[in-house]
Amino acid sequence: MNHVPTKQDIIEAHERISTHIPRTPVFHCEALDRAVRGSVHCKMECLMPDVGSFKIRGVMNALLSLTPEERRRGVLTQSSGNHAQAFALVAKRMGIPATIVMPKNANPTKKRNVLEFGGKIVECEPGDAPREQMVRDVQSATGAVVIHPFNDYRIIAGQATAAKELLEDVPDLQVMVAPVGGGGLLSGTLLTAHYFSPQTKVIAGEPVGADDAYRSLQAGSIQPNLTVNTIADGLITKLGDKTFPIIQQYVDHIVRVEDAEIAAAMRELWERLRVTVEPSGAVSYAALLKEKSSYYRQKIGVILSGGNVDLDRIPFLQRSL
Amino acid sequence: MNHVPTKQDIIEAHERISTHIPRTPVFHCEALDRAVRGSVHCKMECLMPDVGSFKIRGVMNALLSLTPEERRRGVLTQSSGNHAQAFALVAKRMGIPATIVMPKNANPTKKRNVLEFGGKIVECEPGDAPREQMVRDVQSATGAVVIHPFNDYRIIAGQATAAKELLEDVPDLQVMVAPVGGGGLLSGTLLTAHYFSPQTKVIAGEPVGADDAYRSLQAGSIQPNLTVNTIADGLITKLGDKTFPIIQQYVDHIVRVEDAEIAAAMRELWERLRVTVEPSGAVSYAALLKEKSSYYRQKIGVILSGGNVDLDRIPFLQRSL
Repeated sequence: MNHVPTKQDIIEAHERISTHIPRTPVFHCEALDRAVRGSVHCKMECLMPDVGSFKIRGVMNALLSLTPEERRRGVLTQSSGNHAQAFALVAKRMGIPATIVMPKNANPTKKRNVLEFGGKIVECEPGDAPREQMVRDVQSATGAVVIHPFNDYRIIAGQATAAKELLEDVPDLQVMVAPVGGGGLLSGTLLTAHYFSPQTKVIAGEPVGADDAYRSLQAGSIQPNLTVNTIADGLITKLGDKTFPIIQQYVDHIVRVEDAEIAAAMRELWERLRVTVEPSGAVSYAALLKEKSSYYRQKIGVILSGGNVDLDRIPFLQRSL
Repeated sequence: MNHVPTKQDIIEAHERISTHIPRTPVFHCEALDRAVRGSVHCKMECLMPDVGSFKIRGVMNALLSLTPEERRRGVLTQSSGNHAQAFALVAKRMGIPATIVMPKNANPTKKRNVLEFGGKIVECEPGDAPREQMVRDVQSATGAVVIHPFNDYRIIAGQATAAKELLEDVPDLQVMVAPVGGGGLLSGTLLTAHYFSPQTKVIAGEPVGADDAYRSLQAGSIQPNLTVNTIADGLITKLGDKTFPIIQQYVDHIVRVEDAEIAAAMRELWERLRVTVEPSGAVSYAALLKEKSSYYRQKIGVILSGGNVDLDRIPFLQRSL
């Protein structure tokens, strides 16, 4: 797929994947409405069975599009964790050998799940450059088909289905909030809003400690993260050349949130929704809380993207925070 | 309602409450299947919106049956927490003044929720006797209608709807597991299995540190807890004269679990399902794990009854355990 997903592409992606993965629920509760002073509808991607994140949507859509010859070659990707788990699981279910390049410091819970799903992990040093080099090395050695975790239109079309389901379940949202890391979920959410609900504004949440998307929008070109420092381990990657233009064209704005704000949002979601939203998954809600005065009494959709937490390192229980 | 709920009573209770409360989801994942070596279907009562437990089912059924005159008098109950929250919320929605007698040492998260829902809390010393005395005192002073948290056939018929939904979503369960405290949920589950799926065996989980139900079954009469010592704060009450005969007649057996087993089950549920199941809510899964060899490759339903955790005191993170 060599073009920005069309409305029809997203409809077809949804049809393609929805026989394989269940629809995640949308949660609504009095306490969050009170906290935000609006009507808050949470798309619980963190409750996606087995993998605990939206990532399975894009992976399923991409792997279902492979030719038999490509399947035989096996597939290869890079990920700090949630994409890796989804990739390993979907590949296992389809009988495709899967290799995942993961940074050495990846969340151990996410690593364990990848191994349990039968994925082969190749470790690399943290950072964009070592990871990309390792992917090239493994690809040369194995001939596997490389599938980028977000900078791929099939992935973007798959991630777009989360917002599509949310808008189907709760029509007439005035605003949707998604987190931004590499931009796969955000660009998919933006395309869905543009095609299916153009009156819905989309804003994004991003950790201050990895604010490449915010700075890229300001600069008008993709800016890397020279250093990253955030508890939101799923959002430290920089934008890609396929996700950035979509974000540039459609996003209303990006809200940067501090780690302490992410941890506080996490705790509130754990207490009120009784789910273990991970730091990256709570960034959207943290962004909403930060700007809640702008959305007074509005109907708001929040995508809680993932729920894979290292329970021995719960940010809001760490003294160091 | 002065008789053990019939099949028709449970059907009517379900019709009565299901327009007011959403159907909780049933979760299934590979990791729990692997851990149990069976097919495990979790009824997520812990994800009940706002109140985080099944208790709203019984309360809704009971309060919907009050006469206008009874509503005007207001309602009164006793609870260590989850029933209290549900009671306060339902009463608020129906415009009925609600008073709840709670032990001084009740879980602070549960207390806060009761207050937020507009319930009036009257504190008492921990234990059955001081709580019952306080209920009598408040009743004499106010004339409020007393609704017992579990020893009431309207409550039992309401709680029975959790298992009814589980059996509708996953037919042909070979076994269902529920926790037992006062016995409202367990007796409702037993009646549902008896009427709607008589081939389904029902077992119960109970903390060793409050094993009155286990001992009552052995003795053939209701035995109190002389001392209680368990992290499962929702299960420390003793059986009632309405719940005990139903349990005696229909339960297969009761599995006692240690606090360390409850904490380990909790952690596994948090990691694998990404939900904050509370200790009492994890007792059913702990009981299943303890006897898993008996259910090899069977189709198993597990009711995860509640999700209200004091996040500053997560048992599997406490050093003292």
